[in-house]
Amino acid sequence: MKAPNKIAHIGIAVKSLDQVLPFYTEQLGLTLLGTEEVASEQVKVAFLGIGESRIELLEPLSEASPIATFIEKKGEGIHHIALDVDDVEVRLTTLKEKGVPLINEKPKDGAHHAQIGFLHPKAANGVLYELCQYPKTADHEE
Amino acid sequence: MKAPNKIAHIGIAVKSLDQVLPFYTEQLGLTLLGTEEVASEQVKVAFLGIGESRIELLEPLSEASPIATFIEKKGEGIHHIALDVDDVEVRLTTLKEKGVPLINEKPKDGAHHAQIGFLHPKAANGVLYELCQYPKTADHEE
Repeated sequence: MKAPNKIAHIGIAVKSLDQVLPFYTEQLGLTLLGTEEVASEQVKVAFLGIGESRIELLEPLSEASPIATFIEKKGEGIHHIALDVDDVEVRLTTLKEKGVPLINEKPKDGAHHAQIGFLHPKAANGVLYELCQYPKTADHEE
Repeated sequence: MKAPNKIAHIGIAVKSLDQVLPFYTEQLGLTLLGTEEVASEQVKVAFLGIGESRIELLEPLSEASPIATFIEKKGEGIHHIALDVDDVEVRLTTLKEKGVPLINEKPKDGAHHAQIGFLHPKAANGVLYELCQYPKTADHEE
């Protein structure tokens, strides 16, 4: 299997973007690239640029959000690591054939027009990995 | 504050490198750059390259390791995010002056000849951030 290109982003579950953003922008000095509401996941996302990667802060918009459930169970903190790949569908199929437990067996739509798929955290001893593939011709940076 | 340069690494606490490494190298396709024992932290570290960053898997070498304590309390999983900076000492001093809670108020020696300092996780709503500065003239990649 070819190596993923880079860390696309680290997703971090927070109760309130407004409360936590000053730490990231003022104390760490990161640039806020934008925010986006993802209705399907019931989250508001703040994107912060760092090198070739991003830190994505995830605030739940309702109790129905998987991020609300995560915070309820584990508290605020790192939720997942997303790896940038060129071949998300092939990878998910190959991983399934190898018996790696997956959350998504087929790619689904993510933010920034990406095609994404989550591995099950038991595949990686508790770490939730996302594979994400961005359209080659589109500029996915804000 | 100037933005950090990049994600230096993501540190992940694991019980056994031997058990988890095949997932990273065979299923994800990452390259194992090397391993190193850090006696002061009582950990064995495996370095995996991904883009400009690394994933560092941390196996405790004894019960005295902070990673053993982490796994005992929270289970295996993501332990910290390290940000590459050019000015770790100035940043720690500035953060202290601003009242940001720190674990290390002065830089200490880390792996790869880096100078490092940890912020307290309550500074970032439960996320443990490390700042790390590599010597400019040395090649810190294996």
